[in-house]
Amino acid sequence: MTQYPSILLSRAVDEFSKLPGIGPKTALRLVLHILRQENEQVQGFADAISQLRREVKYCHVCHNISDSDTCSICANPKRDASVICVVENIQDVMAVENTQSFRGLYHVLGGVISPMDGIGPSDLQIASLVERVREGGVSEVILALSPTMEGDTTNFYIFRKLAEFDINISVIARGIAQNDELQYTDEVTLGRSIINRTPFKQ
Amino acid sequence: MTQYPSILLSRAVDEFSKLPGIGPKTALRLVLHILRQENEQVQGFADAISQLRREVKYCHVCHNISDSDTCSICANPKRDASVICVVENIQDVMAVENTQSFRGLYHVLGGVISPMDGIGPSDLQIASLVERVREGGVSEVILALSPTMEGDTTNFYIFRKLAEFDINISVIARGIAQNDELQYTDEVTLGRSIINRTPFKQ
Repeated sequence: MTQYPSILLSRAVDEFSKLPGIGPKTALRLVLHILRQENEQVQGFADAISQLRREVKYCHVCHNISDSDTCSICANPKRDASVICVVENIQDVMAVENTQSFRGLYHVLGGVISPMDGIGPSDLQIASLVERVREGGVSEVILALSPTMEGDTTNFYIFRKLAEFDINISVIARGIAQNDELQYTDEVTLGRSIINRTPFKQ
Repeated sequence: MTQYPSILLSRAVDEFSKLPGIGPKTALRLVLHILRQENEQVQGFADAISQLRREVKYCHVCHNISDSDTCSICANPKRDASVICVVENIQDVMAVENTQSFRGLYHVLGGVISPMDGIGPSDLQIASLVERVREGGVSEVILALSPTMEGDTTNFYIFRKLAEFDINISVIARGIAQNDELQYTDEVTLGRSIINRTPFKQ
């Protein structure tokens, strides 16, 4: 058990150690780095964190993180509101946005169905997705969840919930990744990529 | 350039990214973890950091981090005030304390002499070390700096500054580490460990 020379130091190290992937040694290094900064800079750091937690909002349409009740994507009239891309979390919205390949709107589930972790459909934003589709104006729902058993279960659950509506439901393509080597690709992925082959385009 | 869906989020990620060894992806992961915590917990985290920076003190004797003007080690009457262990920084005090092999006091230099980094003797707590020795009551100064060129330069500088006093000046032993393999030990260390061999004790 490491003894810290100061209770204030010990408390700050403890707080940093609670963050994922940060052990006591890294926490101490970060805290001592902070101690070398100017008072205003440190206050800026602390304020940014507490202000974020207090003031952050979630978009009432897509549940993405936002500074206002409607996020900048849902509020953007240039986006195609007839296509909804369903993702697991906020990082996935950012990942899809970074591809610059999608001009529709999003729907953030907040996770995937995972009985092992006690996460059922009612813990996710599935009912509100069905509601969005029911309100009309949606022509396609793209399911962009993780290619895992939980992701597949969730895809299937959503598919059944949306079956009553006259819309297209698609799943993002699975196959070998750009620059991957075939010999190191797992057999499930490689097998599916052969079954789901697409016509060659020049 | 990653686009964040919220300015508050972007600001918090920026602040975390300023910490050493934390890139934007890790920063985002940490910030989203914080967002999932209760408001009070997040406030506790922010308070611990800003309070540390505002209220932390440095011991006026040894310059170790402290909650009061004199640190708990210097204020402890059971410690041997006649022996001073000179270290580079606060982590080194903690490292030596953890060995439970030292019952004297410390002197934290705040770094080592490094002309390349523009750090000269006057940037370090060397004058106050000489002052401590001049005040009397000190019989030994143990130099426990890093075994680097900068550490050696600093050792030599301090040695000359303390030469006028009738005290013992020692350097922590250098040699092969416990459980190290000889074949993987660098030649300087191995060579010195032969030259500085110690009598075998049963």
